[in-house]
Amino acid sequence: MSKSEIYRTDIASSTPDSITVFGCDFPSEILGTLNFGDMAFLEVTSRIPNENESRMFNAMLVTLVEHGLTPSTLVARLTYLGAPESLQGAVAAGLNGLGSVFVGSTEGAARMLYEAPEPIEGEDLHEVAIQVVTAFEKGKRQIPGIGHPFHKPVDPRAPRLIQIAEETGFDGRYLRLIREIADVAGTRKGRELPANATGILGALCCEMGLEWKICRGLGVMARAVGIVGHLLEETRTPIARKLWLETEARATEHLRKEE
Amino acid sequence: MSKSEIYRTDIASSTPDSITVFGCDFPSEILGTLNFGDMAFLEVTSRIPNENESRMFNAMLVTLVEHGLTPSTLVARLTYLGAPESLQGAVAAGLNGLGSVFVGSTEGAARMLYEAPEPIEGEDLHEVAIQVVTAFEKGKRQIPGIGHPFHKPVDPRAPRLIQIAEETGFDGRYLRLIREIADVAGTRKGRELPANATGILGALCCEMGLEWKICRGLGVMARAVGIVGHLLEETRTPIARKLWLETEARATEHLRKEE
Amino acid sequence: MSKSEIYRTDIASSTPDSITVFGCDFPSEILGTLNFGDMAFLEVTSRIPNENESRMFNAMLVTLVEHGLTPSTLVARLTYLGAPESLQGAVAAGLNGLGSVFVGSTEGAARMLYEAPEPIEGEDLHEVAIQVVTAFEKGKRQIPGIGHPFHKPVDPRAPRLIQIAEETGFDGRYLRLIREIADVAGTRKGRELPANATGILGALCCEMGLEWKICRGLGVMARAVGIVGHLLEETRTPIARKLWLETEARATEHLRKEE
Amino acid sequence: MSKSEIYRTDIASSTPDSITVFGCDFPSEILGTLNFGDMAFLEVTSRIPNENESRMFNAMLVTLVEHGLTPSTLVARLTYLGAPESLQGAVAAGLNGLGSVFVGSTEGAARMLYEAPEPIEGEDLHEVAIQVVTAFEKGKRQIPGIGHPFHKPVDPRAPRLIQIAEETGFDGRYLRLIREIADVAGTRKGRELPANATGILGALCCEMGLEWKICRGLGVMARAVGIVGHLLEETRTPIARKLWLETEARATEHLRKEE
Repeated sequence: MSKSEIYRTDIASSTPDSITVFGCDFPSEILGTLNFGDMAFLEVTSRIPNENESRMFNAMLVTLVEHGLTPSTLVARLTYLGAPESLQGAVAAGLNGLGSVFVGSTEGAARMLYEAPEPIEGEDLHEVAIQVVTAFEKGKRQIPGIGHPFHKPVDPRAPRLIQIAEETGFDGRYLRLIREIADVAGTRKGRELPANATGILGALCCEMGLEWKICRGLGVMARAVGIVGHLLEETRTPIARKLWLETEARATEHLRKEE
Repeated sequence: MSKSEIYRTDIASSTPDSITVFGCDFPSEILGTLNFGDMAFLEVTSRIPNENESRMFNAMLVTLVEHGLTPSTLVARLTYLGAPESLQGAVAAGLNGLGSVFVGSTEGAARMLYEAPEPIEGEDLHEVAIQVVTAFEKGKRQIPGIGHPFHKPVDPRAPRLIQIAEETGFDGRYLRLIREIADVAGTRKGRELPANATGILGALCCEMGLEWKICRGLGVMARAVGIVGHLLEETRTPIARKLWLETEARATEHLRKEE
Repeated sequence: MSKSEIYRTDIASSTPDSITVFGCDFPSEILGTLNFGDMAFLEVTSRIPNENESRMFNAMLVTLVEHGLTPSTLVARLTYLGAPESLQGAVAAGLNGLGSVFVGSTEGAARMLYEAPEPIEGEDLHEVAIQVVTAFEKGKRQIPGIGHPFHKPVDPRAPRLIQIAEETGFDGRYLRLIREIADVAGTRKGRELPANATGILGALCCEMGLEWKICRGLGVMARAVGIVGHLLEETRTPIARKLWLETEARATEHLRKEE
Repeated sequence: MSKSEIYRTDIASSTPDSITVFGCDFPSEILGTLNFGDMAFLEVTSRIPNENESRMFNAMLVTLVEHGLTPSTLVARLTYLGAPESLQGAVAAGLNGLGSVFVGSTEGAARMLYEAPEPIEGEDLHEVAIQVVTAFEKGKRQIPGIGHPFHKPVDPRAPRLIQIAEETGFDGRYLRLIREIADVAGTRKGRELPANATGILGALCCEMGLEWKICRGLGVMARAVGIVGHLLEETRTPIARKLWLETEARATEHLRKEE
């Protein structure tokens, strides 16, 4: 007989008349008490947020929900066109694209901030920022979370997130450091490169003590919400079929001409 | 030249210094104002919820986040084992299983309630319930949203959801109808079959005027949150590798014996 | 202690010095002996094909591999744009759209043919076809596998598949029936509606005794091959980023004008 | 008006009476002529294989189809349990796990071989192998494609693949190099570490001139075939539900005891 392994989860369990989630009685302590963002906080920290954490964390998730007609939402719409009976498959397809290119910069920023050297006695964060920027320059790596290809110079979500961080007490060392890094990098490049929303979010993950690996998880759960909104719009004002047929026709025009 | 189609989305757009989402200025009207559940409400209704809607809708989503070690969370964990660099792929894989078997009953309940006959002059909901139950019995179809294989007799989430519905004014016709249907069906079967959480949620979707098709969307967005929590636990107390190896060994024992 | 369930797979097992797949010694009896299509046949029938089965089944799969710039291949390309480190996620996303709309007609045809009444004594397939077409007309359902929106009147793959079926002895009752059905339906509609490739493939699945449910599986495995080809082209002649940016710009033009 | 981008695909196009795939007339030049593996070769090289290429490439794909009850096939089965109406979603979920851990070693081996230094005048491959192994040891990286945790000492697929390579003329520099690397590494470790199937496959991808990035693509297309086989078995001898319920019960036993 094969060996029986020991499996263990501490997230949730049930008896016929109770449901326990992260040690709380679900119906009485969570349901109707926590909002959806608080529940997400509970999932990633195993504890219920206080008022400031609730406000900040909800704002962070809200920032990540809706980015308009992104590749992910186009993917979800095109998938729904072929399998309208499987809304979950369309959302899943959309999430698959949330990889290194689009969601990577939040976790990149968080990782950079966590791995930044501690300021030594008497040294300030500006000195740390210089070390970080210099290291990225030497490695010819792009500094994550600063500047924006479209929102110039300032990503309009960034100052608002900073304001909420100040109101909730999350404007600590990491938030200051990302802004110092942005200053140093901007000065060296000779143009304004302020911390963008992903940079601020990365810093806020650090302020909350979340692992940098979980940043992508916040993006994934938030985008799942946004993708459902796009699928609903697709059922009312569809674009997927037209997009497919026009693209196919344009991309094969040269082949049909040759024939 | 191929014809240019007209594409249109009304969800979001940007200029270099502004972001508009569902007609609202995102930084000033949404960010820091709406919680994550409100943002989800905005995605599925195109408007900002009032206080009662906010409380009810957040509770509905919270109900759907965490169901313990389900097939979906096992799928996410097993997928993460092979591709830890792609957290989004593990969540996507987990969502793919939210089909007719597990998430279908909420939308089934909503659909049943929407399609129930209007009570005619002088008739009450009990008469309507009898008609609905009779129709399901004739079609040999299972009535969605009542009874529970494990929580007997009462799904502990159901009374709490009803209480919140009463507090927020969502205890309308559809909520009464699912409970009448549960009563009628239970009486005929000779055992208690109260409306379960999915039945109540289906009724609440109807009370909010949401299309029955969007019920699955609520489940999908909520489970995305829960799956991220399970992946985080998997990084700390892994079970996927042990589960795979034990299952493989047990399932092929008969083949190796024959050799 | 929880009960230990019995799990069983008969597909494959290993010892330190052997690998057994469907009862065959993998290195000596399968590897280098079976081609890729034969291996797929083994997966869906649990036995090695004879020469005729090999030729027919390989042709069936080859038919399903490449359909040009479909929604699925656009989805894979757009997903790869965001997560180039996860080729498997891009393929997975592409496969998610192979649902009822595009791949459904093969399984629909196979199911229709399996469920067609047996010809009674002295009756020929033409009579059966009339019954089938009449039943579909009464149910206001579209007959799967006949006619083609683009290839008019004849899907050029269909006559070739029929020819191979004749050469390999798979031109049996089901293949004749789909063609009779196409004739009857065409006559009633007053235009040519010959069996298309999906109709012929559905019939060939029946000739091979495959369950109608597995038809979709053939499409899925074949398209996985084609999607990889499209991803390779995307790395060389990318279209995803341009497609996203152009579509986003066109779809939000009206929103930016209003501002 | 937004700018119209130029999109281009050279893979396939259609006219009402023709289908062209990679420049070939699909019905007459591909269908019934190429087997499924040849079609895959056409997808990744844009040309039809000769006889030796056909044999070798089909064998490579066949090697990757079936690995028994892997995490991927468990994922597909557990997903199918929740969404049996969406076979494509179950396959997609299964593919999502084919990431760095399980499929990475083939591409790792191919990359290592492509990036190995050219032997300089008079130097033989043994010298090159020493340089490669030394570089991996210095970087504390595991050498991909050699040794096997279970098949000891020899992966039974490896000698067979080498034999087919010899018969088809693909036993060139890269195949010799992976074996030299295995020898050098084994000698240094003091135990046999022969090239395993993934190492040989990586070398064969190099012999065929395929980019190392496409190795994962071969694994993905091949596993799609195998996963369909497992889903078919799941419909006949299901294990997913039992696996879920047993695992859930065992993993939450400690929580229920505490209550």
